[in-house]
Amino acid sequence: QIFNELFKTIIGPYAEHAGYCRPETAQGMFVNFKRLYDFARGRLPFGAAQVGRCLRNEISPRQGPIRLREFTIMEFEFFFNPKNSECVKLREVEGEKIRLLTEGLIRRRVEEPVEVTVNEALDKGYIKAEWNAYFMARAKQFLNELGVPDENQYFREKLPSERAHYSAQTYDQVVKLSRWGYVEVSGHAWRTDYDLRMHMAYSGEDLRVYLPYAKPKRVKRKRLKLNKVELGKAFKDKASLILRLLELTPAEEVAEALTSEGVYRLRGNGETYEIKPSHVSVAEEEIEEKGERILPSVVEPSFGLDRMLYVTLEYAYSEKEERVVLKLPKDLAPIEAAVFPLMTKDGLPERAREIHQNLLSQGFNVEYDEGGSIGRRYARMDEAGTPYTITIDYQTIEDGTVTLRDRDTWKQVRVKTEKLPQILRSLLKGEMGFERAGVLL
Amino acid sequence: QIFNELFKTIIGPYAEHAGYCRPETAQGMFVNFKRLYDFARGRLPFGAAQVGRCLRNEISPRQGPIRLREFTIMEFEFFFNPKNSECVKLREVEGEKIRLLTEGLIRRRVEEPVEVTVNEALDKGYIKAEWNAYFMARAKQFLNELGVPDENQYFREKLPSERAHYSAQTYDQVVKLSRWGYVEVSGHAWRTDYDLRMHMAYSGEDLRVYLPYAKPKRVKRKRLKLNKVELGKAFKDKASLILRLLELTPAEEVAEALTSEGVYRLRGNGETYEIKPSHVSVAEEEIEEKGERILPSVVEPSFGLDRMLYVTLEYAYSEKEERVVLKLPKDLAPIEAAVFPLMTKDGLPERAREIHQNLLSQGFNVEYDEGGSIGRRYARMDEAGTPYTITIDYQTIEDGTVTLRDRDTWKQVRVKTEKLPQILRSLLKGEMGFERAGVLL
Repeated sequence: QIFNELFKTIIGPYAEHAGYCRPETAQGMFVNFKRLYDFARGRLPFGAAQVGRCLRNEISPRQGPIRLREFTIMEFEFFFNPKNSECVKLREVEGEKIRLLTEGLIRRRVEEPVEVTVNEALDKGYIKAEWNAYFMARAKQFLNELGVPDENQYFREKLPSERAHYSAQTYDQVVKLSRWGYVEVSGHAWRTDYDLRMHMAYSGEDLRVYLPYAKPKRVKRKRLKLNKVELGKAFKDKASLILRLLELTPAEEVAEALTSEGVYRLRGNGETYEIKPSHVSVAEEEIEEKGERILPSVVEPSFGLDRMLYVTLEYAYSEKEERVVLKLPKDLAPIEAAVFPLMTKDGLPERAREIHQNLLSQGFNVEYDEGGSIGRRYARMDEAGTPYTITIDYQTIEDGTVTLRDRDTWKQVRVKTEKLPQILRSLLKGEMGFERAGVLL
Repeated sequence: QIFNELFKTIIGPYAEHAGYCRPETAQGMFVNFKRLYDFARGRLPFGAAQVGRCLRNEISPRQGPIRLREFTIMEFEFFFNPKNSECVKLREVEGEKIRLLTEGLIRRRVEEPVEVTVNEALDKGYIKAEWNAYFMARAKQFLNELGVPDENQYFREKLPSERAHYSAQTYDQVVKLSRWGYVEVSGHAWRTDYDLRMHMAYSGEDLRVYLPYAKPKRVKRKRLKLNKVELGKAFKDKASLILRLLELTPAEEVAEALTSEGVYRLRGNGETYEIKPSHVSVAEEEIEEKGERILPSVVEPSFGLDRMLYVTLEYAYSEKEERVVLKLPKDLAPIEAAVFPLMTKDGLPERAREIHQNLLSQGFNVEYDEGGSIGRRYARMDEAGTPYTITIDYQTIEDGTVTLRDRDTWKQVRVKTEKLPQILRSLLKGEMGFERAGVLL
């Protein structure tokens, strides 16, 4: 019995209308390619991104949030001209170091990845598409920002036998976890024009984009003449699909294969069809061309959100004096700051609530807490990952200053109340070191 | 044949493990009540909110985004002490006017809702729970902010026959749409303690919260003695469920019904069970109580996100000089501002890109556009709902000022470049009228 990894259901009242929950978000962007291209005002390169729930009927989900049946994917589809595949943003990352476990290394049973700059990775042919290299460098930086240092992450190339049928090259970004070793957090597939080509073949909708030349060209070109009768006999109900696929295939490619091997192997939807000289002939003609229609090539950086959340929590988790301190990246902390009155009397709570309200109105995610001792309140916020706590005490009433405390170092500075919003904003953006925020206590 | 509105699927490899896609988000919050109560540090009242996809197998989805099979619900479950049900935030909205089509009006075939203040609605008994009234007032204000004036929205009370079995009172908020008349955008159900009571009865998990008295009380109280043998005979495999339900039922309620009617009608999961004097007896005892265990009561404001998006778009849509101007609420506009160089020469694009970059780094969602005439670029942004456009021209090079244009009035002011971030922030927050932003042109 074949086990289907897709969840199946019935849509509407009739049993024959089966529907399947999507296992990835990608195809929505390919199906809507024409619309997206329109939004991008008809220019290459451009990208679309989507975040969404996906469902796969895993036989045995395990490892907590690592292998789930319901999970969240954040996916880019980035479209570029395959005849002008230069990445215009490459210089932003060309010196960035990335660690690669290439197909070559894996075949030689090397287990330690090689560290190279993005430029070296391209020069040595480790990464085939510039745009893929660009997004891999960004993915590395992204994981750095989530708390994962370079030495605990690398990219592992998928072997041809492991690679999905649509991909010309795939690297998986893996991150070291204390419990489960190296776990994949993102995939970087160069899907070429495979998806658009297949949607085009099956739907009959022309998904190519028209790129005008600077000036018209007179060109000699080969053209395929399709022998529909022979193709029909050979491929029966698949014939019309094969006709459409052949119309999308460069005539030169077919001509060369027929000359050298006597057969052209046409790929489509995971199958291969043998095209023989009796099925097609190749003609040559000279025409004036004003531009050309091409199918964009696609790189797909695809991130597993649940896993990245887990990674972030694991790398943020720390213990200090037998308590938990969750050292979340400051811009990810759900609570940015907390305001405490030192005591619940003598007007301190009123003053603290005023400061709390003011920070709220300035757009900060800030909590007010007057429950329990001040130490206990600090501990509560350390555990929740709140980067900064603000304490209002008797000195506040006298001179308008408050104590600002740093989650990671437990250091405290004294700052003026009216400067709090500006200081907090700078600290949360990482523009200012904590000790420069005020008078160190 | 019975048609099930739930989508069914099989989880894992075995056909007997059926699963159903959730038709609402509510139950997740009830099932996790103990944890949520813990997060709220064991205090009532508190609320939990959830946004999520829900699926209902509608036989005929229709009216575009109004009736979908896959839609998004934003739902609160707000828990309060039924013995102290005062809404502490009521004074924030007590004078707010809301329009109600009450059960009484509907029965008298009145079609025009009555307009009352929140306080009047409570005093006259139109709305039974204060917390429900509070959230209804907030829902009205919310729709105001999305562009719907008071006269195009009201709350319609559900008749007992229309009401779900869990609700003691429900109002639907309806909004007038040009194509489909009045359409429900939110529901305000007072679910009482029904959900927690049922989860408690079926799971055997005590979901009550303990509320200590200020000082211990000596109380006489009635207590039910359950005749398990008789209950077992009468209710067979339902007996253990009924035992748990009876343990949660106030003894006074049962005693009174048995005395006056000779039978107590126990409700559970949509069924009614007749409890007779042979099944239970009522004892009286005097004890010292330090506090009590209660089940919180719940009001549930529940919003249909897709419908509200549609409502927002319809109310924002306008035409001016045969072009579309999308007057989105400023804080919802996906593009907050756009920067244009007047011409693509003489250093204007460079200056414009600099200003664009600066606004981006200050956290604004801002676009750069140099394609086509300036009029065409204004039109593009009007149609996309961008509240403000910034044009860089030759005067910018001379004196550092730029033109700021308002989407809704097409008025323009001249402002200093360095003041742009501050002015934009004030305008987007609605803190400043446009004509006060600079020198009117």
